[in-house]
Amino acid sequence: MAKYTIEDGGTLCEGAAPQSVEPALYLMPSTMADGRPSDVLPQRNIDLCRHIRHYVVENVRTARRFLKRVDPAIDINALTFVTLNEHTRPDELPAMLAPLEAGEAVAVVSEAGCPAIADPGADLVAAASRRGFKVVPLVGPSSIILSLMASGFNGQSFAFVGYLPVESDQRNSRLREMLRRIERERQTQIFIETPYRNNRLVAELAAALPGHMLLCVASDLTGPTEKVVTQPLSEWAKALKRGEQLAKVPSIFLLFS
Amino acid sequence: MAKYTIEDGGTLCEGAAPQSVEPALYLMPSTMADGRPSDVLPQRNIDLCRHIRHYVVENVRTARRFLKRVDPAIDINALTFVTLNEHTRPDELPAMLAPLEAGEAVAVVSEAGCPAIADPGADLVAAASRRGFKVVPLVGPSSIILSLMASGFNGQSFAFVGYLPVESDQRNSRLREMLRRIERERQTQIFIETPYRNNRLVAELAAALPGHMLLCVASDLTGPTEKVVTQPLSEWAKALKRGEQLAKVPSIFLLFS
Repeated sequence: MAKYTIEDGGTLCEGAAPQSVEPALYLMPSTMADGRPSDVLPQRNIDLCRHIRHYVVENVRTARRFLKRVDPAIDINALTFVTLNEHTRPDELPAMLAPLEAGEAVAVVSEAGCPAIADPGADLVAAASRRGFKVVPLVGPSSIILSLMASGFNGQSFAFVGYLPVESDQRNSRLREMLRRIERERQTQIFIETPYRNNRLVAELAAALPGHMLLCVASDLTGPTEKVVTQPLSEWAKALKRGEQLAKVPSIFLLFS
Repeated sequence: MAKYTIEDGGTLCEGAAPQSVEPALYLMPSTMADGRPSDVLPQRNIDLCRHIRHYVVENVRTARRFLKRVDPAIDINALTFVTLNEHTRPDELPAMLAPLEAGEAVAVVSEAGCPAIADPGADLVAAASRRGFKVVPLVGPSSIILSLMASGFNGQSFAFVGYLPVESDQRNSRLREMLRRIERERQTQIFIETPYRNNRLVAELAAALPGHMLLCVASDLTGPTEKVVTQPLSEWAKALKRGEQLAKVPSIFLLFS
């Protein structure tokens, strides 16, 4: 295993099994929206999907569909799938790495976008690193990075904080802290919400924060209805009053001033 | 211009000029390391590079070399390049958007990785949005996201803070604040350093922070010597004492506990 040759974008081992992939834990981004996988995934990823046999996935059904879209010729029934989600216990992780012990590659695929960013994959990556297995992060769509690029906000300092707290006091306290970090550190604040609450979230932000603060809403990134709108909270409030609604599609929210 | 058809991964306008790209400000990631562009860029990006004629770039020489590597058939001399860097004045931005007024696409290409993340492109994006031009962020390599994926650290809350302050008091105060955010908010802290200072930075972190804190150093991401190492600061300190050195290559640093 000491010598490798690059072929078709994958890192393939020389010798007896020319189609085998270098044993490593590959962090394989999936598509975030409808459309062709080749619009958002490099050829290297597509070639790796054609050769990797073991998958650790957030959702088996979505992962199978993803692989079929990457290449309809992939024989899905020849692959192994193990589920890794918020219900997975730490003692279940070692078994997921067993193919690596046997010299075979494993890919981690999350529900949408980059694995181990806002999903339980990080624990598996940590377990693999501790055992000395190679971890290879692959390029793919990240709504955090795409929205930050398109927002025009400060990208030299930014924080992603996941979902805001649901409970009202905690939520307001978090918003005040975010406001402080925007004003004192010029740090862009990024967060997400479940799509059916998009409009309520914008109304709450407009009520809780100064009207001059800028809110960017990026929806259906990489999808057919991709939309990025940046305007002051006062303008968002007016739009809501006029009855304009955000579509109930996956969106990401960015605040800056 | 109301009807578009997707062809070869680019969004092409129907009708008279079938090879023209939908007029928009395309945020075009560039490669971060040696290797084939198709390993890190989707086919859509490659097709767009073949058709876009106007480029706003951080460094003209690097951008020309990048386009030649994407496709040697691109006629570089037929393209226009305008430099956008830290010396660019705000009153220079509108002229960079002039091709959009004329119905032509413009691409922003930074020195390495995703534009408008840790470079001056964000101001141009903001100017384009204010004038109502469409902004299209494209998928590509981001050392922030790739390192976070491979670190095994919390990706549900993280902050990128650019370079740490150079002045020693300010630097220590920043490190204490980062420590607080790791401990209280479980927020992964990400930062960069110029390559020749890599070893000094690790020594300083080991001296200033508790030994059990985890430091991940990701070097030459997507490149031939890509390396991601996560271990406690106490182990990093021992390695430095043994005389082990980090290579003087572009690296990104992540702290967590």
